[in-house]
Amino acid sequence: MLTTTDPTTGLTQDTTIEVTSAAQTATIAASAQKAFDELRTGSRQWRAGLLEALADGLEEHRGELVAVADAETGLGEGRLNGELGRSQFQFRLFAEALREGSYLEATIDHAGDTPLGHGPELRRMLIPIGPIAVFGSSNFPFAFSVVGGDTASALAAGNSVVIKAHSSHPLTSRLSFQILADAATCAGAPDGTINLIFGTQAGRDLVADPHIAAVGFTGSLGAGEALIEIIATRENPIPFFGELSSLNPLVITAAAAEERAAAIAEGLFGSFTLGAGQFCTKPGIALLPSGASGDAILSDLRARTSAAAGMVLLNSRISSALTDILGRITGEGGARILATGTNNEAGIRATPTLLEIEADHFTAAAAEEAFGPVLVVVRYTALEQVFRAIDVMPGSLTATIHHGCDEPQIVRALSERIAPTVGRLVFNGFPTGVRVSWAQHHGGNWPSTNSQHSSVGVSAIRRFLRPLAFQDAPETVLPDELREGYTEIPRRIDGVLVVAP
Amino acid sequence: MLTTTDPTTGLTQDTTIEVTSAAQTATIAASAQKAFDELRTGSRQWRAGLLEALADGLEEHRGELVAVADAETGLGEGRLNGELGRSQFQFRLFAEALREGSYLEATIDHAGDTPLGHGPELRRMLIPIGPIAVFGSSNFPFAFSVVGGDTASALAAGNSVVIKAHSSHPLTSRLSFQILADAATCAGAPDGTINLIFGTQAGRDLVADPHIAAVGFTGSLGAGEALIEIIATRENPIPFFGELSSLNPLVITAAAAEERAAAIAEGLFGSFTLGAGQFCTKPGIALLPSGASGDAILSDLRARTSAAAGMVLLNSRISSALTDILGRITGEGGARILATGTNNEAGIRATPTLLEIEADHFTAAAAEEAFGPVLVVVRYTALEQVFRAIDVMPGSLTATIHHGCDEPQIVRALSERIAPTVGRLVFNGFPTGVRVSWAQHHGGNWPSTNSQHSSVGVSAIRRFLRPLAFQDAPETVLPDELREGYTEIPRRIDGVLVVAP
Repeated sequence: MLTTTDPTTGLTQDTTIEVTSAAQTATIAASAQKAFDELRTGSRQWRAGLLEALADGLEEHRGELVAVADAETGLGEGRLNGELGRSQFQFRLFAEALREGSYLEATIDHAGDTPLGHGPELRRMLIPIGPIAVFGSSNFPFAFSVVGGDTASALAAGNSVVIKAHSSHPLTSRLSFQILADAATCAGAPDGTINLIFGTQAGRDLVADPHIAAVGFTGSLGAGEALIEIIATRENPIPFFGELSSLNPLVITAAAAEERAAAIAEGLFGSFTLGAGQFCTKPGIALLPSGASGDAILSDLRARTSAAAGMVLLNSRISSALTDILGRITGEGGARILATGTNNEAGIRATPTLLEIEADHFTAAAAEEAFGPVLVVVRYTALEQVFRAIDVMPGSLTATIHHGCDEPQIVRALSERIAPTVGRLVFNGFPTGVRVSWAQHHGGNWPSTNSQHSSVGVSAIRRFLRPLAFQDAPETVLPDELREGYTEIPRRIDGVLVVAP
Repeated sequence: MLTTTDPTTGLTQDTTIEVTSAAQTATIAASAQKAFDELRTGSRQWRAGLLEALADGLEEHRGELVAVADAETGLGEGRLNGELGRSQFQFRLFAEALREGSYLEATIDHAGDTPLGHGPELRRMLIPIGPIAVFGSSNFPFAFSVVGGDTASALAAGNSVVIKAHSSHPLTSRLSFQILADAATCAGAPDGTINLIFGTQAGRDLVADPHIAAVGFTGSLGAGEALIEIIATRENPIPFFGELSSLNPLVITAAAAEERAAAIAEGLFGSFTLGAGQFCTKPGIALLPSGASGDAILSDLRARTSAAAGMVLLNSRISSALTDILGRITGEGGARILATGTNNEAGIRATPTLLEIEADHFTAAAAEEAFGPVLVVVRYTALEQVFRAIDVMPGSLTATIHHGCDEPQIVRALSERIAPTVGRLVFNGFPTGVRVSWAQHHGGNWPSTNSQHSSVGVSAIRRFLRPLAFQDAPETVLPDELREGYTEIPRRIDGVLVVAP
C-alpha cells in the first residue's frame, strides 16, 4: 500500500492505494487504446467542450483539491489555489486553440502542372498519435501532474492518456483523476480516455507497453534517462518529451548592478527561494560583477539569506539529494558558503543557502542543479569570463540578463552568446513564473529538455500530433478541415496562407 | 582509396578519394560549427539567395553531374536529369518558404493582465540549431544525397551541413559537393558552410562529434539503428531524423478490380519496378481480391513480370540482400513465386519477381521490405482479412487504396483503419513519385520513420529548427521578425494569426 507524507510535519500515513500491477497496467493501456480508436475521429469542437468540462470539474472541487494537495506538499493554500487556476487556464487555452484550428497545420496543394510535371492533389493535416503516457512531477501537484499541461495537451490533440501518479502526492493524484474521469464521462468521452496508475514499476511497464505512442515527462535527469533506456528496448521506439534539469544562469552586468542593486537583490532572492527553490526555472547561478556594486547585491542577498527560515521541501528524497549536491558544489566545485538561513521547525525543510565562487575557478563541478533554495554566485570582472562560465554549464530552460539602461551592445553580445544554450531569454526580470500563452517556450538544450517542442504554452500540443497526407482522396474520406469548401480555420492553399474570414 | 563501380557492367575502378580520418572529421565538424556561428544570425533574404545560387550552380553543371552519376548508378540520363531538376526545385522551394516566413512560427504575446495575473511580454520564433550531419542514400544520387532535401532544408534553416557521402556514388558526391561549395563561396557563405566526408567510420565519428546538432538520414533500418546507438552514447543526445524502411501496402477493392483491372495491373507493375524497385515508396505488398477480377490483374502482372528483362541495381550489397530477403519471404514467409523476368546481361541486375500468398497465411515473415523489383500479392476474400494483414505489417510511409466509383463506405472504412499506420494515403494512384510541395509528408510509423517531421516538402525545414522565446527583451536584441512594427511575414499576435499585408 502506498503512503503519503505531510512534509510540514514529516508524518507519514497509509493510503488505501495499491501499486498498479503489470497485468493491470497492460489492461489499462489496452483500454486507453480502445478509447483512442474512438477519440481520434472526434471533432475539434467536441474536444474543446471536453477540455472546458474538465476545467469546470476542477473548479467545482477546488476546496477539496487544495486541501488534499496542501496536506501532501506543504505548498500552502495561496500557491495551490493559483496553481489550480493555472491548470484550468491550460485546459481552456487548449480549447481556444482547438477552435482556432491553426494547430492542425492544414495544407492543401491542388493537382496541377509543376516544374517537375503533373503533381497529384495533396491535403495534409496533423492527427493524434495514440495513448500518451504522462509522468507528473512532484513540484507542481496540479499544473505538471494529473491535471497538468501534458494531460491537457495530449487530450486536446485527440489522444487518450495514462498518467503515472507521482509518489509524492498519491491522494491528490487520485482525487484529481476521479474529478477528471467523472467530468470526461459526463462530457461523453469513452471509457479509458483518462487513466491513472501508481508505482515506479508500473511507470516502467507503461513506457514499455506497445499501445503507448509517446511519453510526456517532467522530473529528474536520472529518472528520465531510465525511461529513455526502456524506450530503446521497445520494438518501436516512441518519442520521449522530457523536461529534466536546468541551471537557469542569470547574468548581472556592471551597469545593472550600479543602477538597481537593491531591486535585483530583492528579486533574485525571491526567485531562488520561491517554492523553496523547487522550480525547474529557479535561477541556480548568478553571474555578478566584482567590485562595489556587485558587493552591494551580494551583501543584500547574504542578509536576506541569513534571516530566512527553513523552507518546506516536497519530500525527503529532495532533501537528501540537496545535501549531497551541496557537498559536491562546495567540495569538488570549490564554492564557499556565504550564508544559510536557520531552521528550528519539524518536518522536511531546507535552509536557504548562498554560495560564492570566482569566475576563474568556476567549473562544471559547481554547475549542478540544486533542487532547493540554493544560489551559487559567480563573481566576474570581464564579459569573457561570463562567456566561459556559460560554456562550462549544461544547457538550460532559461537564461536571464540584467542590464543597464544604456548598454545595447553589451546586451546584444550577451544575448547572442547565450541564446544557443537556452530556450528562453529573460531581460531585467526573473525566470520563475512561466507565463502560459501562445508564445511561451519551456525547452532548452540538453539536459533541460530533449525535444523541439516543450510542455508549456499552446505549442505543447504539437508533441502529441503527427502529419497525415491524403493524395487524390475522395472528399468523403477527408476530415472536414481538409475539404475544399471549409473556411473555419487558417489553411495554406497552394503555398498561400489563408486565414478564416 | 575508395572505389567506384558501374553497376551496368559490374566493373570497379579506383577513385582518388581517401576515407576521411577521425582527426579530419573532427576538424571539419569544428569548421562547420565556426560557419554556423556566422550563419545563424544571417538574414532569411540572404539565405534565400544562397539557396537559389546553389540551384543555379547545379544547373550550370547539369551535363557533368548527370554523366558522372549515370556511370556510378546506372539510373539513366532521363531519370537523372529529372532528379537533378527535383534537387534544384527543392532549393528554390525552400527559398520561397524563407521569403514567405511562416516557417519561423513568429508568435508575440504582449505584456498585460491575464486570468493568472500580469503576464510578461513574450516573443518567440524558430532558430537554427547547429551543424547538421546528412547521410545521403544510394537510390537518389541527387535528390536524397549531397545536393538533396536534407542539405537544402538544413541550410534553409540557417545551419551548416556535414554530408557523409554514400559509398555507392563517391564521384557524384565529390562533384556535387564541389559545385555547391563553389556556389556557396560566391554567394558569400563562410568557409565550412557545406562539408563532405567519406567512409563508414567517418560517418560514425561525425554522429558522435559534439558539434553536430542533429542527423538527417535516409537509408537502411540496420544502418539507422547503428547511428541511433551512437547517439545514445553521446553526452548530449541529439535528434535523429531517419527514413528507414517501408512496405507501402496497396489495397485493391473488388469493385476497383472489376472496373479497372488492366489499368491497375499496368500501373502497379510500373510502380513496383520503377527505378528497379529501389524506392522507399515502392509498393511491396498488394492486397488483391480473390476471384475472377483479381485473377485478371494477377494474370496481367504475371505476364508483364515474365516478359521483363533484368534491371540494374545500384550496388552489389542491394543485390545480395535481395536474394536473402526473397529466400525468407518464400521460406518462412510462405509466399510462392508466380513469375520472374529473365536476365541475360552483365552487371549488377535483378529480375522482377512476383509472389503470391493467401491472406490467411500472411504473417510478419512475408512482410519484409525487399529493396528491388519485387511484389508480394496477398489474396483476400473479406475486408477483415485486409485489416488483419495491415495489422501484421510494420508501419509504412504510404498506403494506397484502389477503390471503385461508388463504394464510399468501404473507402472510408479502409482509410480510417489504415491511416494510423502510415504517413500518406494514396487513392486510385501509386505511391512512387513523391510530389515536392507544401503539403507533402514523407513519414510514417516506425520503422518507416522515427520522427514527427519528414524529409520531403517544406515542413522538412522544421527538423532543423527549435524555438527561442524572448521575455521583455529590448528591441535591439530582437531578430527583425519579432520586432513590433515588422509586417513582412505571418505572425500570431496575442493569439490572432496576422498575415502579411
